[in-house]
Amino acid sequence: MQNIEVPGGYGAAFLVKKGQAAEIINTSGTQVVDTWAFDPANTTEVFSVEHTRRLLSRLFIYEGDTLYSNRRTPMMKMEQDTWGGQHDMLCACCDPWLYKYYGQEDHRSCHTNFLEATQAAGYLVNGVPNPLNLWMNVPVTDNESIDVVRPTSQPGDKVVLRALEDVVIVVSACPMDITPVNGGDGTPQAIHYRITD
Amino acid sequence: MQNIEVPGGYGAAFLVKKGQAAEIINTSGTQVVDTWAFDPANTTEVFSVEHTRRLLSRLFIYEGDTLYSNRRTPMMKMEQDTWGGQHDMLCACCDPWLYKYYGQEDHRSCHTNFLEATQAAGYLVNGVPNPLNLWMNVPVTDNESIDVVRPTSQPGDKVVLRALEDVVIVVSACPMDITPVNGGDGTPQAIHYRITD
Repeated sequence: MQNIEVPGGYGAAFLVKKGQAAEIINTSGTQVVDTWAFDPANTTEVFSVEHTRRLLSRLFIYEGDTLYSNRRTPMMKMEQDTWGGQHDMLCACCDPWLYKYYGQEDHRSCHTNFLEATQAAGYLVNGVPNPLNLWMNVPVTDNESIDVVRPTSQPGDKVVLRALEDVVIVVSACPMDITPVNGGDGTPQAIHYRITD
Repeated sequence: MQNIEVPGGYGAAFLVKKGQAAEIINTSGTQVVDTWAFDPANTTEVFSVEHTRRLLSRLFIYEGDTLYSNRRTPMMKMEQDTWGGQHDMLCACCDPWLYKYYGQEDHRSCHTNFLEATQAAGYLVNGVPNPLNLWMNVPVTDNESIDVVRPTSQPGDKVVLRALEDVVIVVSACPMDITPVNGGDGTPQAIHYRITD
């Protein structure tokens, strides 16, 4: 399959069959990609960062790690990670209420991207799970403090997620252009993905 | 109001009006209490650990901190905490799938306690949010590793949560008796709560 573009600030949802892999590509190198997954046969089973943390005894996932659902089922494996840093799994995605706080009434958000993308793909998921924020740079210091800083990923960095069961993966090229989370000049950048066997 | 007992391994849901406070009491000192909150007028607005972490720039909450909803609304204030430790906000609650992993098919869980208690109180909440696990002792080391260890709280330790808007608070005296999370001999212990003005 060819690379598929997701415009900066927008989202997409796509089926990855068991055994296939999704390559998610940080084309610009500066773009955070909020990422979710759920079982297409039962959308109440979702990839859960709070279960994955507990099962890995770690705040972050690295290459080779398994990603678990809220039923503690192995859903995906992070088969490759060219960045090798600490993708955030601690923070909620941006949402309309965050942009209202910044005085923006009609700003796009990862929250609405999740809802739009899943509905466009024909799925109804209750609520917006806590995402895996690929390339989002949120260092932990003193074993308790967190800070959102500029990304250190490079153009073309990619993450490969191998599906251990059929999953729908949702990605959002984070629309945040007020804080430095997406680096650069703050303009959301296009990302790409493709599905491989 | 008198102290109300919640038997070890069971849950309860109760309304706390804006301005009132809920005192949650660790009667035995060893009992973890998984705790949630939601807006009774709109049960899709729930206390969110992932939003609270982001807004406090911290993995843990302490006395004086505000607890935020998934709409980034201040829901409660942790007005008093006699323990003063790091209540876990990183781990999912125990659920039927965890006990199945341990070979227990019909074990009580905080997950089912949440569902039972909210339904008994007349509310329908979609899914089980990531809880605040009062007195659950999950130290973070090396800024990334987590481990679930015995509690260090003492008999009668209490947390006072002041409601900044009307909230339904749900508590579960965690039924876990396989791991040392509830200390002691592993038998879940009764907790108490009361609502004050």
